[in-house]
Amino acid sequence: MQHEIEDIEYAEYLFDRFYGIGSSENGGVTRLGYTEVEDEMHRVFRELGEEKGYGSYEDQVGNTYLYRKDCDMDEDYCLIASHLDSVIEGGRYDGVAGIIAGFLVMDWAVKSGLRIPVRIGAMRCEESSNFGRSTIGSGLITGEVYKHDIGEAVNKKGETLSEVFRRKGYSLHPDRIQGVREYIELHIEQGKVLEEYGDRVGIVQTIAGPRRFNIHIHGNAEHSGATPMGMRADALCAAAEIILEIEEIGKSESIYQSVATVGTVSNRPNALNVIPGEVELGVDMRGIDSSSLDRMETRLKQACKRICEKRKLKYFREKISDIPPIGMSADLQQKLLEAAKELKIPHRPMISGAGHDAMSFAHICDTAMVFIPCAKGISHNKKEFTTIESICDGAKVIYQYLKEEAR
Amino acid sequence: MQHEIEDIEYAEYLFDRFYGIGSSENGGVTRLGYTEVEDEMHRVFRELGEEKGYGSYEDQVGNTYLYRKDCDMDEDYCLIASHLDSVIEGGRYDGVAGIIAGFLVMDWAVKSGLRIPVRIGAMRCEESSNFGRSTIGSGLITGEVYKHDIGEAVNKKGETLSEVFRRKGYSLHPDRIQGVREYIELHIEQGKVLEEYGDRVGIVQTIAGPRRFNIHIHGNAEHSGATPMGMRADALCAAAEIILEIEEIGKSESIYQSVATVGTVSNRPNALNVIPGEVELGVDMRGIDSSSLDRMETRLKQACKRICEKRKLKYFREKISDIPPIGMSADLQQKLLEAAKELKIPHRPMISGAGHDAMSFAHICDTAMVFIPCAKGISHNKKEFTTIESICDGAKVIYQYLKEEAR
Repeated sequence: MQHEIEDIEYAEYLFDRFYGIGSSENGGVTRLGYTEVEDEMHRVFRELGEEKGYGSYEDQVGNTYLYRKDCDMDEDYCLIASHLDSVIEGGRYDGVAGIIAGFLVMDWAVKSGLRIPVRIGAMRCEESSNFGRSTIGSGLITGEVYKHDIGEAVNKKGETLSEVFRRKGYSLHPDRIQGVREYIELHIEQGKVLEEYGDRVGIVQTIAGPRRFNIHIHGNAEHSGATPMGMRADALCAAAEIILEIEEIGKSESIYQSVATVGTVSNRPNALNVIPGEVELGVDMRGIDSSSLDRMETRLKQACKRICEKRKLKYFREKISDIPPIGMSADLQQKLLEAAKELKIPHRPMISGAGHDAMSFAHICDTAMVFIPCAKGISHNKKEFTTIESICDGAKVIYQYLKEEAR
Repeated sequence: MQHEIEDIEYAEYLFDRFYGIGSSENGGVTRLGYTEVEDEMHRVFRELGEEKGYGSYEDQVGNTYLYRKDCDMDEDYCLIASHLDSVIEGGRYDGVAGIIAGFLVMDWAVKSGLRIPVRIGAMRCEESSNFGRSTIGSGLITGEVYKHDIGEAVNKKGETLSEVFRRKGYSLHPDRIQGVREYIELHIEQGKVLEEYGDRVGIVQTIAGPRRFNIHIHGNAEHSGATPMGMRADALCAAAEIILEIEEIGKSESIYQSVATVGTVSNRPNALNVIPGEVELGVDMRGIDSSSLDRMETRLKQACKRICEKRKLKYFREKISDIPPIGMSADLQQKLLEAAKELKIPHRPMISGAGHDAMSFAHICDTAMVFIPCAKGISHNKKEFTTIESICDGAKVIYQYLKEEAR
């Protein structure tokens, strides 16, 4: 649809204000959760709110919120939120697009005197790139995802989350967030479905649940020149077999829309003249079908056992997260699809393969997600791209729904 | 054989003086070439020489030498040498054993008034763990191994060898070492052959030549949850196939005493929620049979091409070193075997799978190596172990040969 020049310009302005933060030489951005770079993103977020005369506050885990100063703070509100952190060398739209949408909706709501209170939320540390745990800010504040203590999670610098929280004055056991009437998040799709079908917005039905594992493999670090092939216990060769088996598991379960990925490798001592003695793999499995996820986990177990026993290596498998697939509010889905139809924006219901802060909020209130296309489905990469028009499309759908509700 | 108490005590004293340098928490040592830790090893080496009244000097690339002050500096000498650097988290005998042997032989030569001048040499950066290049100190000073400029080689901190040399005042184009009548190096075997046969010393016939490659694989770094299995270009899965193929190549050539190893992996961006987009593998192939090495290289080429084409990934293969198998002096081998026989020390001729500084010197003078057993063949590992008696055995063989020569 056609957008007002001033909306496009405002969205571009917001995007530009975040642009340089955490920029890396190669063209991408690195804005890891709970680092000073993420702090800077939140500082700018509050500054952008002040420019519009909004009030702001931070919760006990560092998530930041903006609200209209003239609204009743006791009234339940619609939280339009996303995150401001990124992966290592990631793109500039993942998370930020949803924050820009929040500003647009808030702006329209103020101008039209919308009766439903709206707040914009910026969640902390949505990506697992720093602590190996995702949606930490939203997970803690909703009190549902992290029922076990995650204070021992370690970041890229070797600090625990506990240490970081102590330094920053945050709490690992915060009071649960109150007054959220509904949670709506706009996000780039991070896949190619909308682009393939030529649709402009997707309304999410279910978010795939990630199951994550660390696999530690122990062989013998020996001299690469003086140890005959038949006398080796090469941890990397075993890891290679496991990597290929995990790919095979993902492929055979792809009819259920499941995926399986080895994203991280740590190889020790990692020297050209030493046979690798210790390898650690980080495995990410996702799907919307619990029995498919169960099958993948069972096959992973069997593969580690079979491969390491055959090679006479020791191994240790550790499950580091297990988030079940989460359905979005059926009522909200329906109303957002109707809003898109009303606006004549091509739309489709779809699943989310990626995890989002919406998973945390789905436990405590009606929750919805609006996807917008991103070029070639590329995300978590400097080439990530969507248009400002797409962000405006998605924001308009959210605003249209709110207008209908406020009638 | 039985050794004098004072020899054992002196060797133990020497070992202990190096013991704590570069110690790491896990029990091993990290003494990377051309770092301050290696400098400290060379400082102690000179100090140990001063304690005995030896003179010392450094050449233009930082190798350090000890000599008798009362000898004629213009006379050709027997250089008994090895290295003082280690791999990352390596053992305390690799290199140091040969240095201790040098001190023992020198001590006996002084006491008996041996007519052949002896010098002890400590070569720099024998291990490839820091710069991805091995035998840098001996290679440069003999002027044979590094005929191409290796100034651009980069260390673990990201500095080039040129930068390090400029800072330290060394030269990448030093004058060639003069006056070396013969080069003899004692080294732990770093394999299990002597232990298996119950022999006490091995006299090396040929040193296997390492051929080394970097393989860069380029896929697409995309979101691990939102990218279906069929739409991926996963660089790590391709790397896993290549790792297993290299293992297979090594196994099928093992009848020719060849080996093939992937020692290093760099995975980017190495995040749990991103499909690996770039992987770099470091490959080490060794053998004493050039046609076996040629076959392995051809098969490596074919494997990279086949696997990356099948997966529609780009790749780039780079040969980073190619040192042919090098024969030791037949005359010296014979005489050292006779010396061992004379001393009634069980001995055998054998090959060296590992590379050594002796490879550099074999280009410019008669060169020999004496191996001593190490426990279970373990090396490049904190568990590396040999006995002080074994070092004395090997040193005695070298001294016996020199005594015969000086008759």
